[in-house]
Amino acid sequence: MTEPLPPGSTIGILGGGQLGRMLAVAASRLGLRSHIYEPMASPPAADVAHRVTTASYDDAAALAAFAASVDVITYEFENIPTAALDALEALRPIRPNRRALAISQDRIAEKDFLTGLGLTTAPYHAVNSAADLEAAIAAIDTPAILKTTRLGYDGKGQARLREPADAPAALAAMNGAAAVLEGFISFSHEVSVIAARGLDGSVAAYDPGENVHRDGILHTTTVPARLSPGQRSDAVLLAARILNALDYVGVMGVELFVTPQGLLVNEIAPRVHNSGHWTQNGCAVDQFEQHIRAVAGWPLGDGGRHADVVMENLIGDDILRVPALAAERGTALHLYGKGEARPGRKMGHVNRIRPGKI
Amino acid sequence: MTEPLPPGSTIGILGGGQLGRMLAVAASRLGLRSHIYEPMASPPAADVAHRVTTASYDDAAALAAFAASVDVITYEFENIPTAALDALEALRPIRPNRRALAISQDRIAEKDFLTGLGLTTAPYHAVNSAADLEAAIAAIDTPAILKTTRLGYDGKGQARLREPADAPAALAAMNGAAAVLEGFISFSHEVSVIAARGLDGSVAAYDPGENVHRDGILHTTTVPARLSPGQRSDAVLLAARILNALDYVGVMGVELFVTPQGLLVNEIAPRVHNSGHWTQNGCAVDQFEQHIRAVAGWPLGDGGRHADVVMENLIGDDILRVPALAAERGTALHLYGKGEARPGRKMGHVNRIRPGKI
Repeated sequence: MTEPLPPGSTIGILGGGQLGRMLAVAASRLGLRSHIYEPMASPPAADVAHRVTTASYDDAAALAAFAASVDVITYEFENIPTAALDALEALRPIRPNRRALAISQDRIAEKDFLTGLGLTTAPYHAVNSAADLEAAIAAIDTPAILKTTRLGYDGKGQARLREPADAPAALAAMNGAAAVLEGFISFSHEVSVIAARGLDGSVAAYDPGENVHRDGILHTTTVPARLSPGQRSDAVLLAARILNALDYVGVMGVELFVTPQGLLVNEIAPRVHNSGHWTQNGCAVDQFEQHIRAVAGWPLGDGGRHADVVMENLIGDDILRVPALAAERGTALHLYGKGEARPGRKMGHVNRIRPGKI
Repeated sequence: MTEPLPPGSTIGILGGGQLGRMLAVAASRLGLRSHIYEPMASPPAADVAHRVTTASYDDAAALAAFAASVDVITYEFENIPTAALDALEALRPIRPNRRALAISQDRIAEKDFLTGLGLTTAPYHAVNSAADLEAAIAAIDTPAILKTTRLGYDGKGQARLREPADAPAALAAMNGAAAVLEGFISFSHEVSVIAARGLDGSVAAYDPGENVHRDGILHTTTVPARLSPGQRSDAVLLAARILNALDYVGVMGVELFVTPQGLLVNEIAPRVHNSGHWTQNGCAVDQFEQHIRAVAGWPLGDGGRHADVVMENLIGDDILRVPALAAERGTALHLYGKGEARPGRKMGHVNRIRPGKI
């Protein structure tokens, strides 16, 4: 495809959660339709999608019919089964591409890729056995954190080692899954860069946001982040290097630790990212539209920011604060239409807008 | 209803055009679902609605099923058949109320209502015959404009009288419909106030926008409008007086002429309004969400503005400019997903954002 998808075209989105929901809304602003593929019934994205397929990722017929009905395929999460991707890719382009997915699905592959680009990550060591873990502790020291190499999300599948004696319990917490020991980093704060790369190779990045986590889940993102002008430009250049190396098409979230020794890459996500939700109320083109533009072959938006914004996630019972939040001045609500407010479940977010100067 | 509709509730929207489409997107941000009722197949709003009923306004069974499936009913246009409203109102609340609809459906009832509130309109005179028209010209003089009392929209059903000799042609253009002769107003520019009133009687107004028309269709709206501080507050107070007098619930568009003698009311629309589209990129709570908040019994948003905005409609072949517009800095695209770009058809709009200070 060399021409941008014309209005009326359909974006296929794997996954019907809140990211799929906001991608579908963004697609509508470009006159594009969305077709959601999601195993669970009545997902959040179904409220705003032109079409929804409810089927599992091993339903070959459903995958084929889905692919046939769309012009391009993208996704809102990275843990898509390989066989499903194989079946879909034979029929329609998948953007971002498989290599970005493969790397982000595996913490060791991701760190090998990043360090191979000359970027800095936390020290890491693969762990598949008690002997591996002992060697890893010898190399990295404690405190450290043991993580499964795959399926990591919002603090799940992780165990802290304050001292070497914590090794057996940490290893047991992996449930036999392949793991990686990561050294603790002394950092002052975490920032993330939401960057996009178009089909034509152009790159646009949003101003980095500063992230605060609670209980392993993103709590707030604030723009502007505390960064020197040099750090700000380093952050953006570093993200661009990652996107270019992957021949990436779409939006990527790049999490960085700010350390006395410079910026260190924590992890990358080959999709729109929770820490980019502030763009909905701070930019003419938000991260969701930017992603749709990229995968549809449209020109990227400029990523300019016209306001300072603090994004706050609404987790679990935070949803009970909605009446008060709805009455706050300068606060934009974004609720996901989820029924049950389980602990740790992302129910929505708010963007608090402060008029800014760029 | 005294409690706000909880997330997961459904807003019934009569009409599936671009206004219904943007109302449905706004409802999703509040965790609410939309059910669109629209006689035409595949309307713009269907791309982003949870549910769509395709049926005519005289299909009693479809109207009853629609009403039963929603929690409250609103509309995106004012020319809804009375019998349909009667059937729906027996089952669910309709907001804004019937009186606002009745007044806005009839230019004479509207002007009688406005002048009854002590507000100023253009001089007007009912015209049902050649004799009426002669009397009207004697009272109002030319130049003047003859309009059908009902179904007026975007310059349709109107005829100008430059001099009394134009009377027969103008009357013929009415096709026998009841009409009203309106005197020409010497005004410097047109502004509109987008105001909302909640179920609790609270009123919130956006900063007035300045409108420029081309060929009888809105071309641009610019905020801030050229108004003195006194005029700005007059405009908002005047809109509030209209909303309160109607015990109104929802968003209303109030078009005003700025004249040396003060502000004069051109017309009112009991719905979200094209001249309020700028709020999508200038405010934390846009006019679509404000309307949904009102009809769902939620607290109104504050209406504050964090940026200067120029909204430009994309009419007919303007859609061909989308590739260039998509590449413009600080420009937000809002396309309606309409297939065919007929002359005069509203295909989308852009909001050009200039960081502002309130």
